[in-house]
Amino acid sequence: MKNEAITSRDVDFAKWYTDVVKAAKLCDYSNVKGCMVIEPNGYAIWEKMQSVLDGMFKETGHQNVYMPLLIPESLLKKEGELIEGFAPEVAWVTHGGSKELEERLCVRPTSETLFSDYYSSVVKSYRDLPMKYNQWCSVMRWEKTTRPFLRSREFLWQEGHTVHATREEAEAETRLMLNTYKKFFEDYLAIPVITGKKTEKEKFAGAEYSLTIEALMYNGVALQSGTSHYFGQKFAKAYDISFANKDNQMEYAYQTSWGVTTRMIGALIMVHSDDFGLVLPPKIAPKQVVIVPIGNVEDKVNEVYQVLKDNHISVYVDDSKKSPGFKFKEAEVNGIPVRIEIGERDLKRDVYTVARRDTQEKMEVSADIDIVSYVLELMDDIQSNLFIKAKERRDKMTYEAHSVDEMRDIIENHPGFIKADWCGDKKCEEALKEVGGLKSRCILEEENPTDKCVVCGRDAKHKVVWGIQY
Amino acid sequence: MKNEAITSRDVDFAKWYTDVVKAAKLCDYSNVKGCMVIEPNGYAIWEKMQSVLDGMFKETGHQNVYMPLLIPESLLKKEGELIEGFAPEVAWVTHGGSKELEERLCVRPTSETLFSDYYSSVVKSYRDLPMKYNQWCSVMRWEKTTRPFLRSREFLWQEGHTVHATREEAEAETRLMLNTYKKFFEDYLAIPVITGKKTEKEKFAGAEYSLTIEALMYNGVALQSGTSHYFGQKFAKAYDISFANKDNQMEYAYQTSWGVTTRMIGALIMVHSDDFGLVLPPKIAPKQVVIVPIGNVEDKVNEVYQVLKDNHISVYVDDSKKSPGFKFKEAEVNGIPVRIEIGERDLKRDVYTVARRDTQEKMEVSADIDIVSYVLELMDDIQSNLFIKAKERRDKMTYEAHSVDEMRDIIENHPGFIKADWCGDKKCEEALKEVGGLKSRCILEEENPTDKCVVCGRDAKHKVVWGIQY
Repeated sequence: MKNEAITSRDVDFAKWYTDVVKAAKLCDYSNVKGCMVIEPNGYAIWEKMQSVLDGMFKETGHQNVYMPLLIPESLLKKEGELIEGFAPEVAWVTHGGSKELEERLCVRPTSETLFSDYYSSVVKSYRDLPMKYNQWCSVMRWEKTTRPFLRSREFLWQEGHTVHATREEAEAETRLMLNTYKKFFEDYLAIPVITGKKTEKEKFAGAEYSLTIEALMYNGVALQSGTSHYFGQKFAKAYDISFANKDNQMEYAYQTSWGVTTRMIGALIMVHSDDFGLVLPPKIAPKQVVIVPIGNVEDKVNEVYQVLKDNHISVYVDDSKKSPGFKFKEAEVNGIPVRIEIGERDLKRDVYTVARRDTQEKMEVSADIDIVSYVLELMDDIQSNLFIKAKERRDKMTYEAHSVDEMRDIIENHPGFIKADWCGDKKCEEALKEVGGLKSRCILEEENPTDKCVVCGRDAKHKVVWGIQY
Repeated sequence: MKNEAITSRDVDFAKWYTDVVKAAKLCDYSNVKGCMVIEPNGYAIWEKMQSVLDGMFKETGHQNVYMPLLIPESLLKKEGELIEGFAPEVAWVTHGGSKELEERLCVRPTSETLFSDYYSSVVKSYRDLPMKYNQWCSVMRWEKTTRPFLRSREFLWQEGHTVHATREEAEAETRLMLNTYKKFFEDYLAIPVITGKKTEKEKFAGAEYSLTIEALMYNGVALQSGTSHYFGQKFAKAYDISFANKDNQMEYAYQTSWGVTTRMIGALIMVHSDDFGLVLPPKIAPKQVVIVPIGNVEDKVNEVYQVLKDNHISVYVDDSKKSPGFKFKEAEVNGIPVRIEIGERDLKRDVYTVARRDTQEKMEVSADIDIVSYVLELMDDIQSNLFIKAKERRDKMTYEAHSVDEMRDIIENHPGFIKADWCGDKKCEEALKEVGGLKSRCILEEENPTDKCVVCGRDAKHKVVWGIQY
């Protein structure tokens, strides 16, 4: 059933996106400009993401902590590049109660400064290292234009901050977390990602280098989806994090940070969802199965509900007073992966109907079927189908270009990822911004340039993926 | 082993408290005045609290959401009593980037205003009700004097906000959540609580009435530990939350809110812990069992570790290079409920040692014992022993008083809860503040006054529990 509340994705992608956000009740605008109210359906997805990621972090030896919300200006300023990067977009607290503060405090845009300040007071010896901490919190960046989940003044995220005794160990951590993100995106969100290194221009303020996972949305726009930064000793020097190494010599420590945000919910929408509403991969869907009873079928409904629940499948019965058609539509717009319709008439023929959200296929199944295995297999199939479809589309929309004209043609007619060689000069990178707003997404680390720089024609240093970004 | 880093509890309770916080690495002071860094050991307790409470909330039909961090001044001001109560202690954001804001925004001290604003836009009909939402977040109150976990400018909490179609349903919700908190405190934290109603003077700004759970600390000081507020239609009228009722008439909705905070970690310390460090009830301990190997006992250690882990007991092996004595002390200071010492020499006699943190008893057990049952039973025993000890102490320190002199005598010599009758007049309540800072903790709803007002001698309306507060 077409959902009248949702503009067609191929007609107006931006409108479609906000329509889905609204129709699926994921978030609402608030009376605080640029800030969202994350509603139960949206927050439940975030909780599921948190639970999976948090498990992955803990398995790799990370612990959770909580750092203050506010950062004194003097502390923020200790690392020059960071403050330069963030100063234009932080919110400042200047008064506590009716009193003006002696020093203003900013609402954290990110917490490198606080973690570094803390580490400087607790790290003494190589025996204290590594410290691998993470926090789940909200951060604030005073953006001018905002879009639900994609860019808002306040958003939720996790930020990992680690400190190590050696460069090797810190660099390995940077990679480990990049790969953790890649695994999470591909195995749970069913979103294929490209990994690589950010250019100097696009890297995080204060990082020695930034690694990134980049995803491609349905409309060919790129989404930076997670980043993992290697800081070397930059913050350690600015905040004095030094330790006695094995040779009993004082040495500055090596740090990393890495984060993903509620933006991932935006990615889920823009990669998998359709004109009927949200589509969720079963592994990340807070509710995996809905049972819709039609007529007097209580016994069978209870039986199916109980056996699915006992097997750790997240299931609910929609026994509200709405019509079956309305319930189907609601389950569809909310992206419930599997719908089981149990009807009185069908049960007389010993069958009922199972519908999958991704393809909207309906299957008639025998009422005596092993419904647990059936649903588990179906969810596996939906999960992998979503990934395959997204990957095929992404691959189809990933182009190679050998000239600026070719790039312009791609961006104007069928945007996507564009692979093109680059000399490494910031001027050439900036020149491409004139081509429909193209930006470097990442330097591919495992592919060598095969051509000259696409802009200046000099020798190329890197193969780079370019794209238009959210 | 006495821990030199910890002042004795009976010598200097306040110093003992901060020593335990520091020695058990629960939280650290930050460079942001009045704000804490919650360290891994402290945050893990909070995570465990969250997980249990969140399960209880969801079982009773609540859903999680996330509201903005900042509240525009005009929105905050809509309900007069609330702004009056909170204005002196909010932090104000006045600048975004380099620009002064048109309207200043406060960092949420609590979110009634935002929830009400949201409800006013989504509640239309009785069919939409109830909405039972909760959020886990940080809040900020610009306190002058602060103490780790007990009173800090920023703290973590959950705040439930619900909206209902009838007074009866909203009042039932207020009670339900009070009882949920009581159950959590008694069954999980092993802390007995008194429940009752706050006086008009002590109730939450803007509430029609506030229910509270009150716990008594080791030193006889009372701690308000959780509150559940009934708002009636106050916020509904201020924020225009109205709905079409069953008779199709517009009616203002009925609301509640309820919350508990990281202060609960402070309560755990001040009720159960001792001169050796933290003591944690097994049901809330992030790590329940530590195994300390002494000598070459790897096989047995692995066997015990694996079987405990397989049975969902949270266990770790301390195989660091420290001495066994050091490890025992560390496990003690961190409050690990059960310690298993597996020694090479003991194993030759087919025994090993189990130590319980609460009583510090050591038991020699046969190496062939069913260790899972043994540990489970031991943890049950520790859990109930902690509750019984705390309850006996609380009962012993709960007095009845019939005159102000008696109350003064109690407070000066052996403070605790004091039950005394009260006429209901705010002046009498305020007069008692002169008695060592006594404040009403709560009105006992199930006990009738048996005497005259302890202050003025007029007829008493309520039996009230009084105490000195944190």
